Amino acid sequence: MRVICTISEIREIIREWKKEGFSVGFVPTMGYLHEGHKSLIEKASSENQRVVVSTFVNPTQFGANEDLNKYPRDLERDTNLCEKAGAHIMFVPSADEMYPTTPLTFVNVNILTEGLCGEKRPGHFQGVCSVVTKLFNIITPNRAYFGEKDAQQLAVIRQMVKDLNMDVKIIGCPIIRENDGLAKSSRNTYLSDEERKAALILNKSLKHANELLLEGEKNTEKIIESIKSFIISEPLAKIDYVQIVDSETLKSVDKIEKPVLIAIAVFIGKTRLIDNFTWSN
Amino acid sequence: MRVICTISEIREIIREWKKEGFSVGFVPTMGYLHEGHKSLIEKASSENQRVVVSTFVNPTQFGANEDLNKYPRDLERDTNLCEKAGAHIMFVPSADEMYPTTPLTFVNVNILTEGLCGEKRPGHFQGVCSVVTKLFNIITPNRAYFGEKDAQQLAVIRQMVKDLNMDVKIIGCPIIRENDGLAKSSRNTYLSDEERKAALILNKSLKHANELLLEGEKNTEKIIESIKSFIISEPLAKIDYVQIVDSETLKSVDKIEKPVLIAIAVFIGKTRLIDNFTWSN
Repeated sequence: MRVICTISEIREIIREWKKEGFSVGFVPTMGYLHEGHKSLIEKASSENQRVVVSTFVNPTQFGANEDLNKYPRDLERDTNLCEKAGAHIMFVPSADEMYPTTPLTFVNVNILTEGLCGEKRPGHFQGVCSVVTKLFNIITPNRAYFGEKDAQQLAVIRQMVKDLNMDVKIIGCPIIRENDGLAKSSRNTYLSDEERKAALILNKSLKHANELLLEGEKNTEKIIESIKSFIISEPLAKIDYVQIVDSETLKSVDKIEKPVLIAIAVFIGKTRLIDNFTWSN
Repeated sequence: MRVICTISEIREIIREWKKEGFSVGFVPTMGYLHEGHKSLIEKASSENQRVVVSTFVNPTQFGANEDLNKYPRDLERDTNLCEKAGAHIMFVPSADEMYPTTPLTFVNVNILTEGLCGEKRPGHFQGVCSVVTKLFNIITPNRAYFGEKDAQQLAVIRQMVKDLNMDVKIIGCPIIRENDGLAKSSRNTYLSDEERKAALILNKSLKHANELLLEGEKNTEKIIESIKSFIISEPLAKIDYVQIVDSETLKSVDKIEKPVLIAIAVFIGKTRLIDNFTWSN
């Protein structure tokens, strides 16, 4: 596996691969890789002849009060994980390589970005869509892999690819969890021991919602309220949002009729964590 | 030359061309082609092994009160012109083919789109950038050709391509004029005989500005005022804008120091025409 830092170098390699007729799988990440990323890379490796993983902490998708500067980084660990998972290239551009001049161009997806994390993190999805467009234009992958933990991101990227006729297949992969149920996330590393235990409330509250749904509850407001009281029973937890939305349009629904996404964002101390599941009966 | 109407068909042809190692030149148009377009196609033909011309009257770049429905169309004439100029494919998608569902995704270029036509036609450049992105993703050209008559469009597309790492070279081509100096435009067809004569005021006023610049005038306000009084001497003409901007940033300048774009938009009757020239001493 090679680590490549410049756009011109990776373009040259991709050009050679395409000449050979190799299919290219791509896993865009912000680095500090965990089992969730590993599952994406392994899936990419099983479906493509060549695999590129990018690790780029993209400044344009962080808000002014967010964790850009303290976002965890560990290139050596990432390199080992990528190699073991079957990647051929790790693309690790600098911010200057990706943004040599102040960018004036942005890709925006409307409607789908209005609720959930989009509402709480203004500008976030503009940053995500713009950098993913740039990376797609650089890597020109046949398939790109995204985790279902960022459910809204996955829906937004799918919409962008469809609307802009990007010639890439988007593949969503299931959430990977710790043994005790906490969804894997690079941000889990921020948690103290005590917070780590408290963070279990996210998955527990979703399991609770799942039980209500299994019992036949159709009223989303009731389910949301029940999730909320579950979460606030944990003293270290502060709710950012609890929402139940149509799994395609991401619009709020009053009654469970079509498939829905139950999505939550919760601060554990200062760390904002997200989790979700999709329900279809 | 073949006329292709679906995205899947043209993708298939492009894929075959790329396998053969052919370079692809692309000329995006709204059809009703004239000598200006012809010069773009001929240039593309001289620099690439294969040439695609798209003719698509893109609804998303027209404002509510603009001329979408009456925009002139003549497929047969366009086909003849494309063939003679050396095109291999004319891509003529329907609006449903380009927009099978209501698009939620848009590409926006800031700053450069604030003045000139961007100020007068809100949403226009969002429509242009989004459809050009779609077409680039479908055609994947090595080079794309745009006329300098739409000077702001050319600057905006160059910025978009740079910011989003699109792997295409943008080539600007000079304005083509009628013998009497009127810049060629599909919209000239709207003009009555009387308006056609009146429309000469655009080019004449720019020639007048050029003389002032040759005489050493550096004060942009003086030049603008002089162009304006020149234009209003024509009773059928109504000024939309007269601006002198930095040719790169498209920001207004007070004094002629660096290269500038002198750009005008003038209604002749109900028809809005544009013209421009770049000055560097």
